Amino acid sequence: MFDFITRELGLVDRAIARAVEGDERTLTGIANYVVGSGGKRVRPALVLLSYLAANGERVRKAVPAAAAIEVIHTATLIHDDISDRSEVRRGRPSAHESFGIGRSLIAADYLMTAAFKLISNYGVDFLGTINSACMNMAIGEIQDLRHTGNAALSEKEYFEIIGRKTGALFEAGVKVGVMAAGAPKPQVAAFGRYGRQVGLAFQIVDDTLDACSDGKRLGKPVGKDLREGKVTLPLIFALSNAPQKDRAILRRVIASNKRPPPNADVARALRIVRATGAEAHCREVARKHAESAKRALSRVPPSKAKDELMEFADDLAQRGR
Amino acid sequence: MFDFITRELGLVDRAIARAVEGDERTLTGIANYVVGSGGKRVRPALVLLSYLAANGERVRKAVPAAAAIEVIHTATLIHDDISDRSEVRRGRPSAHESFGIGRSLIAADYLMTAAFKLISNYGVDFLGTINSACMNMAIGEIQDLRHTGNAALSEKEYFEIIGRKTGALFEAGVKVGVMAAGAPKPQVAAFGRYGRQVGLAFQIVDDTLDACSDGKRLGKPVGKDLREGKVTLPLIFALSNAPQKDRAILRRVIASNKRPPPNADVARALRIVRATGAEAHCREVARKHAESAKRALSRVPPSKAKDELMEFADDLAQRGR
Repeated sequence: MFDFITRELGLVDRAIARAVEGDERTLTGIANYVVGSGGKRVRPALVLLSYLAANGERVRKAVPAAAAIEVIHTATLIHDDISDRSEVRRGRPSAHESFGIGRSLIAADYLMTAAFKLISNYGVDFLGTINSACMNMAIGEIQDLRHTGNAALSEKEYFEIIGRKTGALFEAGVKVGVMAAGAPKPQVAAFGRYGRQVGLAFQIVDDTLDACSDGKRLGKPVGKDLREGKVTLPLIFALSNAPQKDRAILRRVIASNKRPPPNADVARALRIVRATGAEAHCREVARKHAESAKRALSRVPPSKAKDELMEFADDLAQRGR
Repeated sequence: MFDFITRELGLVDRAIARAVEGDERTLTGIANYVVGSGGKRVRPALVLLSYLAANGERVRKAVPAAAAIEVIHTATLIHDDISDRSEVRRGRPSAHESFGIGRSLIAADYLMTAAFKLISNYGVDFLGTINSACMNMAIGEIQDLRHTGNAALSEKEYFEIIGRKTGALFEAGVKVGVMAAGAPKPQVAAFGRYGRQVGLAFQIVDDTLDACSDGKRLGKPVGKDLREGKVTLPLIFALSNAPQKDRAILRRVIASNKRPPPNADVARALRIVRATGAEAHCREVARKHAESAKRALSRVPPSKAKDELMEFADDLAQRGR
């Protein structure tokens, strides 16, 4: 994926390394540990491709923005892992497992500061775009926490949460990429819709893989959301499509007052979810969002970068299959 | 204190309340809990007074900046308390005790975002000033953690840490106040020196009270730093001025591998520190920094606001006596 901009993504990695570099080796060390842990670089790739598709002329101009988005994303992962008590991230001990909560919190602050510094060179409107994404992320995370164990979560509530937690940063990233290209407002808005919709599709597939994949295929343990009492789209689907008796079992596991619930219960709940055909349903929902992302770019003139954005959207719903 | 700007500080409180207001009542609730917990509002007062002393004409123009500084300060307290495992803040359960670590972390992010939003309306250079203070705070905090239990901490290292942890935000706050008044660069720099020096004096007295006051006089338990293995100026003084035998005791308590060390050991160490006359020494050091703060404003034309800034500096070294 993103072969077209491999070299440019290398520039992003170097920009990130420079942004977190400093005399404080502990901070730089933690920052590099989390940023360098092999993320897929999806967000910065979309920033760069959007810049190019919006007729940006020197891709280097978008590199700091792409770096900032990835750094912000990484900082939120540190917080998520602390909040979820996750011990593993991308196959390695999570930051707070390796360095302790205190140091990891400071490193996350440091990363956010570095990101804002990268963005601030573009101007106040760029900062406003990123800042409002950060505010949405905070709101989304608190909603997510509030609905922990809530088997009655509606599809509408689910979409509001992932829209804020994931959609907002995808949207903001694509927007600043296009703004850096000097695109007019309607074009910024159109790309923003693209970013939001691919963000939603991306998150739906993530949630689907966690509930419906097997650990071997996924390369990490499945059922994390269920163990944390987080209700996602495949769960919502199963809660209205599983046999009556099975629904009661799902509700019990979701609302369990043992956190995490016993492994056997989680495994049983996952079997129930899979038996409903939730994976196919959710991938279809993701595909619709990907289609809507593509439609948002219908007026964008053809280019190699636009092709890549379309292809990214096309591949989304199939990810991890 | 700050009678001259009581009404304006009320505006700051209202600006803070507006900035953290939102549909997410959990977030607004936590934010209000921590912001409304009766801080002394020292930082916003200095922002407003500096604005006025730099000939700013409509104090309302400085209110969002003052609010932002207080909000940032409050967000760092949430992190500090999580990192230090402090259960009490300003006589009430700390945020993470009341709401859990996850929610508190999100609230801190939310506060930072709200603060950056308040500042961004002033322009990119204001954001840069605040951002570099935030970066310094992160670096100072990590240094602080790294030197936990280090009885060999030098005075120079201590000053570097408090310069970053406390001095930087005082300095940045005063600077943005003066920048909002449209002051020329040399004046911004002079006020910045004032902010930094009163910040240092403020922190020195804080650290001195924690080591040398008694709980009744202070209104909260003393010896917190020592229990956490944090070496502050009174400790550094005692480590080179106590009788040889007592120094060994101090070093043992500081470097204790039991955290917190037994209460009896802490009490004994505090008695040793007090017996060295550390309080008088540290207050004298604070007084020198306050003097240097006043000198930084020597070229600022006389005004009621300047008088207040001078008086604030004068009172610093006596605080809590």
